[in-house]
Amino acid sequence: MVKLCKFPVDLVIEARWLATVAADQAVLENHAVVVQAGVIIDLLPIAEARQKYTASSLVCLENHILIPGLINCHTHAAMSLMRGLADDIALMPWLEQHIWPAEQAVVSAPYVQDASLLACAEMLSGGITCFNDMYFYPQATAAAVTQAGMRANLGLLVMDFASAYANDADDYLQKGFDAHDTWRSNPLISSSIAPHAPYTASNQTLQKVITYAEQLGLGIHTHLHETQDEIVKSEVQYALRPIQRLAELGLLGPSFVAAHGVHLLENEIQLLADYGCHIAHCPSSNLKLASGIAPVTQLLATGVNVALGTDGAASNNRLDIFAEMRLAALLAKGTTGDASVVPAKQALAMATINGAKALGLDDKIGSIELAKYADLVAVRLDDIATAPYYDPISHLVYSCGREHVTHTWVAGDLRYSHGVYANIEPNELKEIINLWQVKLSQLKVEQHKK
Amino acid sequence: MVKLCKFPVDLVIEARWLATVAADQAVLENHAVVVQAGVIIDLLPIAEARQKYTASSLVCLENHILIPGLINCHTHAAMSLMRGLADDIALMPWLEQHIWPAEQAVVSAPYVQDASLLACAEMLSGGITCFNDMYFYPQATAAAVTQAGMRANLGLLVMDFASAYANDADDYLQKGFDAHDTWRSNPLISSSIAPHAPYTASNQTLQKVITYAEQLGLGIHTHLHETQDEIVKSEVQYALRPIQRLAELGLLGPSFVAAHGVHLLENEIQLLADYGCHIAHCPSSNLKLASGIAPVTQLLATGVNVALGTDGAASNNRLDIFAEMRLAALLAKGTTGDASVVPAKQALAMATINGAKALGLDDKIGSIELAKYADLVAVRLDDIATAPYYDPISHLVYSCGREHVTHTWVAGDLRYSHGVYANIEPNELKEIINLWQVKLSQLKVEQHKK
Repeated sequence: MVKLCKFPVDLVIEARWLATVAADQAVLENHAVVVQAGVIIDLLPIAEARQKYTASSLVCLENHILIPGLINCHTHAAMSLMRGLADDIALMPWLEQHIWPAEQAVVSAPYVQDASLLACAEMLSGGITCFNDMYFYPQATAAAVTQAGMRANLGLLVMDFASAYANDADDYLQKGFDAHDTWRSNPLISSSIAPHAPYTASNQTLQKVITYAEQLGLGIHTHLHETQDEIVKSEVQYALRPIQRLAELGLLGPSFVAAHGVHLLENEIQLLADYGCHIAHCPSSNLKLASGIAPVTQLLATGVNVALGTDGAASNNRLDIFAEMRLAALLAKGTTGDASVVPAKQALAMATINGAKALGLDDKIGSIELAKYADLVAVRLDDIATAPYYDPISHLVYSCGREHVTHTWVAGDLRYSHGVYANIEPNELKEIINLWQVKLSQLKVEQHKK
Repeated sequence: MVKLCKFPVDLVIEARWLATVAADQAVLENHAVVVQAGVIIDLLPIAEARQKYTASSLVCLENHILIPGLINCHTHAAMSLMRGLADDIALMPWLEQHIWPAEQAVVSAPYVQDASLLACAEMLSGGITCFNDMYFYPQATAAAVTQAGMRANLGLLVMDFASAYANDADDYLQKGFDAHDTWRSNPLISSSIAPHAPYTASNQTLQKVITYAEQLGLGIHTHLHETQDEIVKSEVQYALRPIQRLAELGLLGPSFVAAHGVHLLENEIQLLADYGCHIAHCPSSNLKLASGIAPVTQLLATGVNVALGTDGAASNNRLDIFAEMRLAALLAKGTTGDASVVPAKQALAMATINGAKALGLDDKIGSIELAKYADLVAVRLDDIATAPYYDPISHLVYSCGREHVTHTWVAGDLRYSHGVYANIEPNELKEIINLWQVKLSQLKVEQHKK
């Protein structure tokens, strides 16, 4: 008998089920993922993997489903510390009377770094390995992302209004590019240019955005058609609906990610499809701020790529893509009257590969396939809330919550497992929470007195 | 100094926050609930409680909010074993091609008892202390409820169609009354007469239901206006919409609980209010089966009492009132365009006191008040997903999940805590799950072959 030599590898994960989210939507049973230098190098039955490989780290997931890391395609991580600061209030008074004053009072680089670290912790524990962010001080967010060891596409925020962060559009752009330069060699962080919204950026500013995005090869991330109000105002100011204005300016294209897209006419949905744009659907936030319900079924049917986002914790109030998956699937059924639309597999695709496509990262992440990064999440299915089982993907979307996540890997590194983070200390989070809670509570009391 | 004698009591629970859900919606800080013989006998600041009482059992909840036990006002507990059996399918094919054949194949008294025990375990761990049920073999459900030590209002199911359980309407009624007699002395179990739906019960059957309900002083629990389809069919068969038919027959009244109420005209909402009827709103199930979205805001504004239900696990797929609270609040905002409707406190009331009112139990449960049963739930708020905090009720509804429940008491008895049940063994649940999963999986495979 010939003794076969086994290949030494960094990591082998053996899973009862494995949702590839590849083009064929295969769900494999009793398969192993083999990881070397952060990349998936093999995907094969467990028995064969045991013959072929010897792993520095072997993880056996007997009652779990392994899924690609979830992608939160629209958030403001640094709003985590404003979770629950103001609820049950409509978007404009919520922004004008609560969120903007709070931001004016506290937002600084240290605030953004602290709040982003809390958000990273919440997201990693809920199986999110990558997020698409837009906020002030992106460099401070990058510091938190780097500490947490997760992946992010950070928006280089641009608007025409001064803030503690920047004075005007040029200043925002310059600060954004300076930040971008600091993480150019970081494989976990990428950038988009992020004009806040059509209603906070002039045509001149948006033209600069296009020029720079083309020069630097960056995508564009913005809020679009979140409320009827912004559409009406645009019609008054520009005699155009925002999406038409952006189309005429030349912003739309396959690197354009629009958060929300709640209020869209049929021809606008076609326009998004024709340009290859992406929608980051944020169903919880859209409901909570009473913005409405995005026409996800029509968007998908027309060929628009739809990903999922949580929006910020102040308007959700969870950074929880499990909740968004379930809600996106349920809402699509309830609003169309067709229970077969956005089935569980599609909801999972929206939370993974569609997010990767939106960020231009679908050659690297978003599915469990050879040569992609090992951004992986283990979800236990042996809870009484997920028993019995007939279809693991159905359970994942309709029965599971983020509390069923047991392991989160980013590029093959275990970043979270069973309540413990690789690089974040519980006491560090406690201190952050206590520090800013006091400051923001004080602010709330003062506002109440006014 | 006079040494004061302390009163000996069974249980004192000290909580950082306490949501009374009383008429004034008070949220108390650092208060204690004092329990004797299952009943709340005092509610006072912690410091005073320590002076006044000595407890056989003292529970300190330093970072928790204590809330009344959640009430699941419409479910089919015994469908827990069909969770995920058939998803992404419309109501009628879902019933006709999947659920009814499965029920025909497996439903029996042992099945109902096993499945109800699994459902009780899931509900207790999610803070549900009482549920309003409708299913075959209610006596078997009662056995599971009694083992679990929770509270239930069990429907005495009536329909015109034969099943393994009963042959015809009279047989259903007789079996229901026999069951009712067995739990008449059980303080935790009550009954309603439960005609399945207007479309499965003839006028003659419904008239019998009214007669018996009046004679026995029982409420009525039925499905009503869940889909447009049942309304259209009723118009064809009876020349009346179902709710008009029930009104003319004399079923409507202050002991009438209608599950769903998705499709209601303005005058029908007024009719429900005028009669003092109750709606068990089941938002997840209504979306998942593509039935639609109930007009909750109009119902509440018109004065209809609206409680929350999960429906069965086959159409949700969670028995999770936390999920329904959040969804009810979000949907009401998103569909009315008013972010202030169904605020967090109202969602909590719908999940507690409104359910108690619907079941005619609001003198006994539904709020934390003197002389009510100590049906209580502790929810931890020290998780990173619930930090920081500015308003504990907002966190409870928008940020928390059922996984934050740490203790569930029913009438002062601790029935669930930190993953452990007082009267349910994990192995017992495992055996139940394995047994029926095999049978139902086999059935699914056979149906697939057809």
